[in-house]
Amino acid sequence: GNRKHFNGHIQSLESHIVEDFRRKLKYFFMNPCEKYKARGRKPWKLMIQILKIAIITAQLVSFGLSNEMMVTFKDESLLTFKHLFLKDFKDYQMEPYAIYIKADLYNHIYFVIDRFLHLQNLTMGNLAHTMVDGRTAPLSLCKVFYRNSSIDPSNETFNIDPHIEQECIYVHPMGSVDKCLDTRTNFSLDFRRLISVNIYLSLKSINLQTVRNHELPDCYDFKIQIIFDNSAHSGRVNVVVENNVSIYECKDWRVEGTSGKNNYGLLVFDSVVILSCFASLILCGRSIINGIQLQFGNLAFAPI
Amino acid sequence: GNRKHFNGHIQSLESHIVEDFRRKLKYFFMNPCEKYKARGRKPWKLMIQILKIAIITAQLVSFGLSNEMMVTFKDESLLTFKHLFLKDFKDYQMEPYAIYIKADLYNHIYFVIDRFLHLQNLTMGNLAHTMVDGRTAPLSLCKVFYRNSSIDPSNETFNIDPHIEQECIYVHPMGSVDKCLDTRTNFSLDFRRLISVNIYLSLKSINLQTVRNHELPDCYDFKIQIIFDNSAHSGRVNVVVENNVSIYECKDWRVEGTSGKNNYGLLVFDSVVILSCFASLILCGRSIINGIQLQFGNLAFAPI
Amino acid sequence: GNRKHFNGHIQSLESHIVEDFRRKLKYFFMNPCEKYKARGRKPWKLMIQILKIAIITAQLVSFGLSNEMMVTFKDESLLTFKHLFLKDFKDYQMEPYAIYIKADLYNHIYFVIDRFLHLQNLTMGNLAHTMVDGRTAPLSLCKVFYRNSSIDPSNETFNIDPHIEQECIYVHPMGSVDKCLDTRTNFSLDFRRLISVNIYLSLKSINLQTVRNHELPDCYDFKIQIIFDNSAHSGRVNVVVENNVSIYECKDWRVEGTSGKNNYGLLVFDSVVILSCFASLILCGRSIINGIQLQFGNLAFAPI
Amino acid sequence: GNRKHFNGHIQSLESHIVEDFRRKLKYFFMNPCEKYKARGRKPWKLMIQILKIAIITAQLVSFGLSNEMMVTFKDESLLTFKHLFLKDFKDYQMEPYAIYIKADLYNHIYFVIDRFLHLQNLTMGNLAHTMVDGRTAPLSLCKVFYRNSSIDPSNETFNIDPHIEQECIYVHPMGSVDKCLDTRTNFSLDFRRLISVNIYLSLKSINLQTVRNHELPDCYDFKIQIIFDNSAHSGRVNVVVENNVSIYECKDWRVEGTSGKNNYGLLVFDSVVILSCFASLILCGRSIINGIQLQFGNLAFAPI
Repeated sequence: GNRKHFNGHIQSLESHIVEDFRRKLKYFFMNPCEKYKARGRKPWKLMIQILKIAIITAQLVSFGLSNEMMVTFKDESLLTFKHLFLKDFKDYQMEPYAIYIKADLYNHIYFVIDRFLHLQNLTMGNLAHTMVDGRTAPLSLCKVFYRNSSIDPSNETFNIDPHIEQECIYVHPMGSVDKCLDTRTNFSLDFRRLISVNIYLSLKSINLQTVRNHELPDCYDFKIQIIFDNSAHSGRVNVVVENNVSIYECKDWRVEGTSGKNNYGLLVFDSVVILSCFASLILCGRSIINGIQLQFGNLAFAPI
Repeated sequence: GNRKHFNGHIQSLESHIVEDFRRKLKYFFMNPCEKYKARGRKPWKLMIQILKIAIITAQLVSFGLSNEMMVTFKDESLLTFKHLFLKDFKDYQMEPYAIYIKADLYNHIYFVIDRFLHLQNLTMGNLAHTMVDGRTAPLSLCKVFYRNSSIDPSNETFNIDPHIEQECIYVHPMGSVDKCLDTRTNFSLDFRRLISVNIYLSLKSINLQTVRNHELPDCYDFKIQIIFDNSAHSGRVNVVVENNVSIYECKDWRVEGTSGKNNYGLLVFDSVVILSCFASLILCGRSIINGIQLQFGNLAFAPI
Repeated sequence: GNRKHFNGHIQSLESHIVEDFRRKLKYFFMNPCEKYKARGRKPWKLMIQILKIAIITAQLVSFGLSNEMMVTFKDESLLTFKHLFLKDFKDYQMEPYAIYIKADLYNHIYFVIDRFLHLQNLTMGNLAHTMVDGRTAPLSLCKVFYRNSSIDPSNETFNIDPHIEQECIYVHPMGSVDKCLDTRTNFSLDFRRLISVNIYLSLKSINLQTVRNHELPDCYDFKIQIIFDNSAHSGRVNVVVENNVSIYECKDWRVEGTSGKNNYGLLVFDSVVILSCFASLILCGRSIINGIQLQFGNLAFAPI
Repeated sequence: GNRKHFNGHIQSLESHIVEDFRRKLKYFFMNPCEKYKARGRKPWKLMIQILKIAIITAQLVSFGLSNEMMVTFKDESLLTFKHLFLKDFKDYQMEPYAIYIKADLYNHIYFVIDRFLHLQNLTMGNLAHTMVDGRTAPLSLCKVFYRNSSIDPSNETFNIDPHIEQECIYVHPMGSVDKCLDTRTNFSLDFRRLISVNIYLSLKSINLQTVRNHELPDCYDFKIQIIFDNSAHSGRVNVVVENNVSIYECKDWRVEGTSGKNNYGLLVFDSVVILSCFASLILCGRSIINGIQLQFGNLAFAPI
């Protein structure tokens, strides 16, 4: 009788535990709406998730717009450099920009130097020469050529040393005009040996546009490379402009009027993003731990 | 017997009423062609509708052609303004019209002013300066800039006040040439602070073309806005021309020769349109009333 | 017995006639290949047809090539007129050729007159002035304008007479230069009333190119019309060049060397075409007659 | 008994032969993988084939790259000639390059001669005049015209001899300037008879670009033909530039530094290609012979 009773008790206990486990499992897989119906609990976890998605989207859009302004500034700057430093450059040109006559190449090179020297009087942008150790960084005019070669197409003979050498002349924007004229008179190219003429410039700029969006203007450092490529020796010298830009925060800045006020707003917004992400992390972690506890049957301590 | 007779009579009456109602209903839903076959009535209502459609279509086409002439005039005027006021403007240019050199911007601005001052000697259109209180309206040359700023890209430092100010100079077309030269000497731009240069013009024109279509020419008032946009400070200044036009009847006009005669024709035509529309309205109303009467069984007074 | 025999004879005759008719009908609808197999007749009729198709195709191709040369000459001539008479005309221009400034219109008109006067020293083609009664045909410079009008867009008033008048000046290519200068000084346009300036030219040319294809060169008479269209009075004057050409045999011509020889060849070829077409016509007619005879049973005389 | 025994022996022998043949046939059609499983033979024949494919592919790619460089050089050279010898040539021109005015044609011809005479001072490529018997090859300026003709479009009369004649003037690049001026003063064209002006040039060049790929530079011989085509006599003279190029090894050459070393490498590589192709040929031949032997049952000597 007792044995039977005990067995019955055990069975009832087992069925109770199983029932309890089933209930917990069912509750675990309920969606917030069903939880509210079952126990009347308000879906605040769901609301935290929705809030998180909304503010992260807002942050992304803001970041994207700020980034687009940056990309536009870079593109417009490259276009500006082409118009400033390339002689007779036209936007609507479809063919590559190329030179065919010796004198034209010299003129194009002198044009770049002139434009570099008088940059401050010419450009309408916030462009300025880079300062290195208190001096303005010079323009480097480098000619790349075969070390030694005598080429005579008429007699179909050539004697060539394929080692490549480079010689550079530095033009300082603050140098006297005489020096520049010297550069011109001393600068000559042996076109038979010439592989390319490379001009390296370094310019700085500030993207003021972002001030109106209550963001801090960034400083831009442009490394411009103008390559007159004669490597084919076909009589056609292609001109390529390359532009490496590095963007960083300016050293010293002050925005009058709206100083700080808006940055506090951004700080608060960022804090809310961090808090909501952190809360979401904790809630997810708890949910995963509960799931593991349910899986291994350690149900007694499951705090659901 | 009597009862039976009376019942029979009632039944016959009922069947008569039903028959009559069915006949009226059938007639009500007949098309004009069937009505003509059934009662020999000429389909004059149908002919009124067809006439109405034809004359309203004619009126629409006439209105559309007149409108197209107006739109073409507006478009051609905008093109004319671009060619008159923009230096070296080319139609087949695909890229946006932009400036890169300081001196070019000054030249473009002076070009606009020169063209405005000598407009009467240059344009072949019916363009003229606007008169305000007996004086010709001036050209407004406005520069928009940050209130205060010192920007030094070389040292990566800037101090900027994002409040925007605007300063305007007014150039009167009847002013002496000396004044204009004064304008030039006094006009200078601080490109570091400059956001944009806006030029506002006001011109009037008359679209004479419509005279040949026996319509009255309209007067046009063009508010032209030429914007040199330096807001990006990338070194590229985009030039945009905007054109707001208001069209109204001229104050005082006289068309010799065909005076009035043609307007009477138009008046008669408009009267016919109004009459036919009114007749159509009455006929439609009658038909709707008949339909309602048929629906509520009040058949005795239905005058079909 | 006799009757039976006669009937039998008749039947045999009928069956013979039917058989004969069937045979003729079968032969009539045979193709040339089957006829050759059946009776061994060579398909010379087929060969005549094939020959006819071949030579007519050759004639068509020759005619088409000759025609293409004519069309090309007309197109190239129109292009030449545009380059000769329109100032700064460019081939690759996509937009309509238009003028916006008063002085430009005068220059364009004088340019046309200059080019017309010095045509013989300029053009590389076989172009020449047209001769009328021993004198060279003049250039007609016509201005089309409203008879009377005073337009004041500033005050929004106008007084217009929509009747259109035309005034023409004639410039003779052999006239003295003084006269031409007179034309210039006396030529003035009231742009407020001006609807269009039309220039009418007449030039002659000879398409020598066909000589090398052993064809006779044709004479061309070009009626060129250059229209400066100000009808919109929008400030934009469109320039349109129209070219009416009439082609005819030259009055007096002599081609040395190959004179006649080749024309005899062409004559022989044309004769062959005519002969083969005529033979084909006769054969087709015979076939149709045979068909009709077969249809009406008049078989005895059918010569198949 | 014996007979039976012998028959049995024969049957056993036959079955043995059939079995042996079947085994050989099976082995013959095995793939390398199965052969390795069956007899443990390493698949060295397969590896030879794979090696062959790899090195032939490498050779093809190397040949293709070298060829592409050659094609690019030819194309760029043609473009260079157009820019050097055609006046006001623009890359982005869509329409054919054409001339309409007599003076323009003379200027274009003189431009070509000037550019040819001063080629060494103008071009940046390795272009040079061709030497023939120790003298530089001249530029040939040929005019092609109808032998005799008097054309009068005004009177619609012409007298033409369709025989074509050609007259040439030779301009030597080393000739004195006086002679060149003589050429100009004596050079005149009768445009009525003129069919075309052809200019023939001969230039040499060396494609140095290949040095950097450790290949030997080739010598190029350009035969350039500039045709001013007036055959249509429509007033439009089309200008066509044709370029026939022959490529050959230069007569005398020396590449310093890497002399020979790399050529030995190429020689070794080519030897490996030849050896592997030869080995592959022998193996294929052996396999075919084996197959034939198996087919004709001559199995005893089959060395499989």
